Amino acid sequence: MQDRLEDVKAQVQAALQEAMAGLPSGDLADAMRYACIGGKRIRALLVMESARLFGLRDRESLPVAAAVEALHAYSLVHDDLPAMDDDDLRRGLPTVHVQWSEATAILAGDALQSLAFGLLTDPAVGSAEVRLALVHGLSEAIGARGMVWGQALDIAAETALEPLDIVAIKRLQGAKTGALIQFSATAGAVMAGEDAAPLADYAKNLGLAFQIQDDILDVTGNEEETGKRTGKDSAANKATFVSLLGLDGARDKARKLARHAEAALDPYGELAGNLRQLARFVIERDA
Amino acid sequence: MQDRLEDVKAQVQAALQEAMAGLPSGDLADAMRYACIGGKRIRALLVMESARLFGLRDRESLPVAAAVEALHAYSLVHDDLPAMDDDDLRRGLPTVHVQWSEATAILAGDALQSLAFGLLTDPAVGSAEVRLALVHGLSEAIGARGMVWGQALDIAAETALEPLDIVAIKRLQGAKTGALIQFSATAGAVMAGEDAAPLADYAKNLGLAFQIQDDILDVTGNEEETGKRTGKDSAANKATFVSLLGLDGARDKARKLARHAEAALDPYGELAGNLRQLARFVIERDA
Repeated sequence: MQDRLEDVKAQVQAALQEAMAGLPSGDLADAMRYACIGGKRIRALLVMESARLFGLRDRESLPVAAAVEALHAYSLVHDDLPAMDDDDLRRGLPTVHVQWSEATAILAGDALQSLAFGLLTDPAVGSAEVRLALVHGLSEAIGARGMVWGQALDIAAETALEPLDIVAIKRLQGAKTGALIQFSATAGAVMAGEDAAPLADYAKNLGLAFQIQDDILDVTGNEEETGKRTGKDSAANKATFVSLLGLDGARDKARKLARHAEAALDPYGELAGNLRQLARFVIERDA
Repeated sequence: MQDRLEDVKAQVQAALQEAMAGLPSGDLADAMRYACIGGKRIRALLVMESARLFGLRDRESLPVAAAVEALHAYSLVHDDLPAMDDDDLRRGLPTVHVQWSEATAILAGDALQSLAFGLLTDPAVGSAEVRLALVHGLSEAIGARGMVWGQALDIAAETALEPLDIVAIKRLQGAKTGALIQFSATAGAVMAGEDAAPLADYAKNLGLAFQIQDDILDVTGNEEETGKRTGKDSAANKATFVSLLGLDGARDKARKLARHAEAALDPYGELAGNLRQLARFVIERDA
């Protein structure tokens, strides 16, 4: 899987650079490109591996993979803003508003969202119906019922009188990170016009395992490896899977979820090898 | 035209409310709905009247009209943020970040952009090809080559050593307000699969006339009528069409542009009556 991930990283980076080639030069384009550098590219891998399950080629799934990464980059730029999580470090580099300004960070995020929708219209992706289904699905996944709602819940939790319980945290994370992960993992089935239910099940478990590992790394990780500030959640007295389940309990839960994610891939047999490995990688990573 | 505009306003308001019905309740949904209240709905009128030129019905063009108004609302919410234009009054009401918070304003704008793209996928709009063409066109009009680029130029101009000249201001406004106006005015032709060139010509002249009148109203208007702070540009020593051409020169220029806009509609004869009236309204309005 690591080889494939490196391959996906290179393809996505090239696709994003190409999509942003010829933008009017200036801080806006610079900040957009900067925001798209690096990252684990797990969402891109989900898109391109789910597409492979159905015999689709990389050149068909690549614009979708680039779209979800542009989208993810926008969400990080806005989440890092002073008015939101107020982070100064991301992917080992100063955040966009630190490097440029708040205004540029807001605008770069806005333009990356538009870019993501534009990428989904690439004729290489498939029929007009398929591309429209992706546009519709992305709009739902990232809007006021999905990712942005999750971020709003997260912001609201910071000033709530009581810390969230496990049900509330699952709902929050299901929206904030789960919805885009689910869109990414089911994209192949949508492109192929096949049943997306097994991939949705995989994504649900994977997304939660991913988030729990993020919470674990906020406690056990260091900033050099993660490329972002750690210890922020406990400093903010924020309820996390670790604060609610304990470190061992959180690790157990993440392992269980990763196993469920792997099991959901049974219908695809050998073809899903990389997606199975990804489920293990997600809970074993230290960055 | 005023009757038709009132009719469009009512239809668009209902469509936007319906599109946001059933959102998870909370500040995010409240702020999104609040941001969509009021407004001149000129972009919606452009969409629905350009669609009529080609015999399309309101129920076909309404989702597109709602999309451009959701998009316009998002752009105002973000432009009003403290890190951008720092406005506290819009459409006669406190701006979203004043009413809620900066975080909620950023997120509400983000979710309104997603909503706009989602609205374009409505099957009522037409074939999958048509809807995709609109998604692609909107992405171009509002992204890093269009609206957001224009706002970035505007922000950059504030700290530039020299005020902008007329060429630079035309480029800025062509992107910041012109691109979405052009998308709106050509939407009908795109939906009908017809030549959009005459409407693009109309929109280019109309958009510039609209902006010049905005600059005039910033000098001559009052806050009660415009529903936003006036006198801001001259206080900020910002180059505008008025500062560059003088008040009379700006009025002359706006009149000339409105006449050009009207002339561009010649191919559509009587059918374009409302769009012609709109060109006159745009330079005669006091709000």
